[in-house]
Amino acid sequence: MKNESFISGMVTDIKCLGKITFLTVSHGAETFNIVATHDQAVGYNKLKNLKNNDYITINTNQQNGEIYTKEIVGVEKNNKGTIPESSNAKNYAILLNQIRSYFFDNNFFEVRLPSIHPGNNKGDIFEIDFFGKKARLSSSNALYSTVMAANMGKVYSIQRCYRAEPSKTSKHLSEFDMLEVSFLGQCFEDLICELSNFISDVFNRVNKLIPDQIKALPFEEIPVVSYADLNCKYGLLNKGLGKHEREIAKNGPTTVIHFPSKISTWSALPIDDNYTYSLNFLAPGVGEVAEGCLRDTRESFLRYKFAKLDLCDQLNWYVDLNPLPNIKILSFGLGIERLAMWLFGITNIRSLNCFYRDKNISETMKYGK
Amino acid sequence: MKNESFISGMVTDIKCLGKITFLTVSHGAETFNIVATHDQAVGYNKLKNLKNNDYITINTNQQNGEIYTKEIVGVEKNNKGTIPESSNAKNYAILLNQIRSYFFDNNFFEVRLPSIHPGNNKGDIFEIDFFGKKARLSSSNALYSTVMAANMGKVYSIQRCYRAEPSKTSKHLSEFDMLEVSFLGQCFEDLICELSNFISDVFNRVNKLIPDQIKALPFEEIPVVSYADLNCKYGLLNKGLGKHEREIAKNGPTTVIHFPSKISTWSALPIDDNYTYSLNFLAPGVGEVAEGCLRDTRESFLRYKFAKLDLCDQLNWYVDLNPLPNIKILSFGLGIERLAMWLFGITNIRSLNCFYRDKNISETMKYGK
Repeated sequence: MKNESFISGMVTDIKCLGKITFLTVSHGAETFNIVATHDQAVGYNKLKNLKNNDYITINTNQQNGEIYTKEIVGVEKNNKGTIPESSNAKNYAILLNQIRSYFFDNNFFEVRLPSIHPGNNKGDIFEIDFFGKKARLSSSNALYSTVMAANMGKVYSIQRCYRAEPSKTSKHLSEFDMLEVSFLGQCFEDLICELSNFISDVFNRVNKLIPDQIKALPFEEIPVVSYADLNCKYGLLNKGLGKHEREIAKNGPTTVIHFPSKISTWSALPIDDNYTYSLNFLAPGVGEVAEGCLRDTRESFLRYKFAKLDLCDQLNWYVDLNPLPNIKILSFGLGIERLAMWLFGITNIRSLNCFYRDKNISETMKYGK
Repeated sequence: MKNESFISGMVTDIKCLGKITFLTVSHGAETFNIVATHDQAVGYNKLKNLKNNDYITINTNQQNGEIYTKEIVGVEKNNKGTIPESSNAKNYAILLNQIRSYFFDNNFFEVRLPSIHPGNNKGDIFEIDFFGKKARLSSSNALYSTVMAANMGKVYSIQRCYRAEPSKTSKHLSEFDMLEVSFLGQCFEDLICELSNFISDVFNRVNKLIPDQIKALPFEEIPVVSYADLNCKYGLLNKGLGKHEREIAKNGPTTVIHFPSKISTWSALPIDDNYTYSLNFLAPGVGEVAEGCLRDTRESFLRYKFAKLDLCDQLNWYVDLNPLPNIKILSFGLGIERLAMWLFGITNIRSLNCFYRDKNISETMKYGK
């Protein structure tokens, strides 16, 4: 704590014992425990009727690690209370910080990727008129992230992504935070391992900082199951995991690997005619949190595919900007709000942030009437 | 460095002295210095014709801090070279990391703000059809950041912002990284002080990590000059600083304060009928990098203003969500690419990132032909 004499912030706890009052005052992520006595604190009676979330400025005197009040300089009453999402937003800030620390400690570069993408030939996207050209808001930065990994080795980004789906479920937003991770590796198992390390490490880091906020149960290892095995068990018929997601992950976080080609992204490398080097990460109570794959970087295949789909103008840069077509590039994309839902036991994704977009714009729908 | 025996990465330096070769291999932000000898390295002749940016996998043996080659497992030739912007992108990643470290160390919460904003009544914005509602891409998150500060004390965000200006200058992009900072304070001087601390501290942090990449000259204090004084000197006629920006900041970074009401944001608190509590931060060779103000949070004024401009539906939430209308909220917004231009001596903003948007989409304009 800085040796300042003036402290300003919101009252987060107050105990008045007549001629002595104990205050907790927070300013941003910093918290001060302050003592005020009737004898020594000028303006002591300004503390009367002070409540949580009121704003206070105090001139203090700091001795032996204790903070004493010289004067109550000002008090501003809060008659509305704070935004109810603020406390989740603080946990979310800590999660973001620990995610970034993980990648910094593991030698990933943060890259910044464009959110205006060329072309708009897709159903669930927000269209943009980009100076007369067809464009759209990013629904995934996977291709950009892949190219950056091919050039820089190990990269991650945390940026907004968009899905123009007017969904009203408890785990979908039309604008959300996407973590994209890409790196050069040896084989598909490197991806399973990296994702598992990331999840375990972030769980431990956040649990160390704010253990009372963590609602996810501790876990040892993250089990890996193949789609083919789940197919036998649930009769998935080469479709998505859908309603089975929660059942599969009911005992703890689970990684499902080797999805059928029919439901995999075109950018995943095939294993054979039926399956691809792909994975989904499922969390208890939430379902899908991340998906990833070993990228198919075969130049001739990609050029053939783009030509067939008439996407050369829109996507040939993806081939041109990969300087190492025979190297394995591993990638995953993770919805950070969903990770937060699992870790902090949040049942509705809307309660993480006051300003959310589902099929509505929260602030104009809920406030300003 | 981890005690792994397999090392993969891009060759960033190679010196072959016949029967001994010294290699530098980078993987992400991690760098290895490796020795290979003709006697001990199986596949030594794979090193022949190896060049910078080629990709290599080596089985190594690590003794006394030295890394020796047991086997050259694989080599992948890079025939294209890496993206020319990669080296600037690495510096940019370090800058982002140090900016975030500054705010973490100073007890700011990172907040995530929406980039789809309600309404589209403005000239230089990208319009969006948001499920039938008029919306636009964020040109500033200042109002959201202000509300979050009123509720959480000290906040910052780093997100994409957008200006639909088909500009072709060397310092404008239509999609860029905006740092928004907002906090509760005592007076306008707190803002001058916070911005100055931030700039000085980030300069020192980055200079400590990558001194050879810093091209900005060292500075002691950041001088503060008033618009009124500059008006006398340059005859500004209540207009922007325009072409005088570089002259004003030619000797070092400079903060200009108290702009005329006519060219200030409506959200800045007036000092009197002529001037506002506002500031611009100018950097040598770049010009404007940041602007900020003491927010006008007077509830009755804001409601009157929004009613007059028929913006109640679009903006009344801004008043409703501020629980402390009589508290001073200080804010600034900073273009991170411009900060990077100054620090790293970059003359064209496009050379920071392979994927940029000016009036074109860089990757489809430059590649994939």
